[in-house]
Amino acid sequence: MINDLQPSQQNRQPLPETTLDPREFRQALGTFTTGVTIVTARGPDGAPVGVTANSFNSVSLNPPLVLWSLARKSQSLAAFESASHWAVHILAHDQNDLSGRFARSTSGAEKFEDIKYEDGLGEAPLLSGCTTRLQCRTAHIYDGGDHVILVGEVLRFDKCDTPPLVFQSGNYAIATSTTQTVMPPDGEDPRNVSETSSLGYLLASAYLHFSAKSREHASELELNDIEYLILNALGAREARTYHELITLAAYTGRFVGRESINDLAARGLIRIDDEIEETTNPPEHIDHSHIYLTQEGKVLVTRITSQSQQVEENMMRQLGVPETIALRTLLSRFVRIHSPLIPYRWF
Amino acid sequence: MINDLQPSQQNRQPLPETTLDPREFRQALGTFTTGVTIVTARGPDGAPVGVTANSFNSVSLNPPLVLWSLARKSQSLAAFESASHWAVHILAHDQNDLSGRFARSTSGAEKFEDIKYEDGLGEAPLLSGCTTRLQCRTAHIYDGGDHVILVGEVLRFDKCDTPPLVFQSGNYAIATSTTQTVMPPDGEDPRNVSETSSLGYLLASAYLHFSAKSREHASELELNDIEYLILNALGAREARTYHELITLAAYTGRFVGRESINDLAARGLIRIDDEIEETTNPPEHIDHSHIYLTQEGKVLVTRITSQSQQVEENMMRQLGVPETIALRTLLSRFVRIHSPLIPYRWF
Repeated sequence: MINDLQPSQQNRQPLPETTLDPREFRQALGTFTTGVTIVTARGPDGAPVGVTANSFNSVSLNPPLVLWSLARKSQSLAAFESASHWAVHILAHDQNDLSGRFARSTSGAEKFEDIKYEDGLGEAPLLSGCTTRLQCRTAHIYDGGDHVILVGEVLRFDKCDTPPLVFQSGNYAIATSTTQTVMPPDGEDPRNVSETSSLGYLLASAYLHFSAKSREHASELELNDIEYLILNALGAREARTYHELITLAAYTGRFVGRESINDLAARGLIRIDDEIEETTNPPEHIDHSHIYLTQEGKVLVTRITSQSQQVEENMMRQLGVPETIALRTLLSRFVRIHSPLIPYRWF
Repeated sequence: MINDLQPSQQNRQPLPETTLDPREFRQALGTFTTGVTIVTARGPDGAPVGVTANSFNSVSLNPPLVLWSLARKSQSLAAFESASHWAVHILAHDQNDLSGRFARSTSGAEKFEDIKYEDGLGEAPLLSGCTTRLQCRTAHIYDGGDHVILVGEVLRFDKCDTPPLVFQSGNYAIATSTTQTVMPPDGEDPRNVSETSSLGYLLASAYLHFSAKSREHASELELNDIEYLILNALGAREARTYHELITLAAYTGRFVGRESINDLAARGLIRIDDEIEETTNPPEHIDHSHIYLTQEGKVLVTRITSQSQQVEENMMRQLGVPETIALRTLLSRFVRIHSPLIPYRWF
């Protein structure tokens, strides 16, 4: 282990105290997007240490060098300064809890409590579930103001295909590649759909694909659109009134006729709580009848749900994990902003 | 300017040649997400130099230090080693062309050709349109294998609200915060919509909001859903046949009746090319009649289009720029995978 701090410190001119606003400076730096890493090592006492750092970056290919910065006030400073080796874990998108845990200023013992790890080179603890792990031998420790800059030579690495965690402006994030990699099938006009298409058109196209699939499935079950919608609405929440079903269907521009209710009841899929007097003058007087799924109706809804899940899983596999997460995140944000209460599962 | 290379190099033990596979190592490093920067300076001859670097990171708050790494083989090495100051530009999401331009191994003169810049501290060229700019005085230059590590003290910075460009696994990307920041309005059940809701439900909710808006607008124009769809389909491409319109409408689970066509024609919004003999036995024999918008129809479609654009712009403003870009990117990818040809504009 080479500690370059001494010569470096001897050499540098003392820097004046900064006059920059620390909060604004941090915000400006935060606009630089990073991954998130946990760097681990063994202290001189053999205890594992680990810190969350997003100051990691690659330096050199040959020799293979990487670096990161550690606060001089860190409890783990002494351990890292004396460690011959350390391991960098580039965290996966689902490891933000681990990131939070190792970002706290608690002892190594607390951080590693109940966490399984193996011993890597120099006995540096190796965590699992990460996107990439780099096992390094300390090459340099440089002065970096209130931090030290640790440069390590990468001796071993492994990676898995889990998409990485991203950090930007103080928030965890997921990255969506804007490089077009999926080409449309031969013969299709690629101008037909592009990132510059209107959001409305894209939403319609995506949704209509889904609803076409469910329409297909509905027709296999001998249900029309309205019947399918009614069963799904009752599957999500029972005891809805006829009036509620009309309201739900109106979102899709459809009208639920009394005959659809009667047909489903005749097929033994739903039953109508007829306590409230029926009249020949709907809808005012039948508004408050409650509608329930029968046992047979419940079985059918279970089949519908499981088929929908299959369609969905298949689509997500083709789209990719980070893309699916990002798409769900964005759509749920969009829906929360714009239409917070569409109170039924379409599927 | 302090060059710490000498003491650092004297001190370090020679590293052996790496045995890691360079391609795999680069791929492993690439899983660490970064922003993209262009760092600029003035050479000793006064010529501007600039390089694209994603090896940037923050180091210290007090003193305010940042670092980045520059390849020893870079044409600009001498200029940066002798420069008293350099400027880091954290690129905005729409600056990937600029990133590509400064990543080439051409001369500074070529890179800066036709590019407007101001002089910053130490005459370092300042580019515009970036997310953040940091003007630095060289504090240290450290050894970093086949690169040098440049540490700078930040003297000035400015930032704008443009979301930054992201780089991950060799691709440009945009980041979506997964931290839930948008809360549903008071009284709404936040469990109703979440990032864990099914994609189908989310797509349906988002789409239905859009289509509700257009349904509202359609009804103001005294058009029903089918008439609205027909006009939009003809607005996107004229001279469609009745058969084509039936196919388009079928995607939405609707049927286009001959009476809708006749109604629109009677209102003077469309005209039917009746060269092909009409019969009382549709649709086989009227399949190939072409349908056109009249002048009045075109005016109406223009109104519809501009209203749709307004709705869309309003929604995007509320969702945010990077979110809209990411959502469009993901939806267009989704649509390309799953339903490459829904051949009409819904709006």
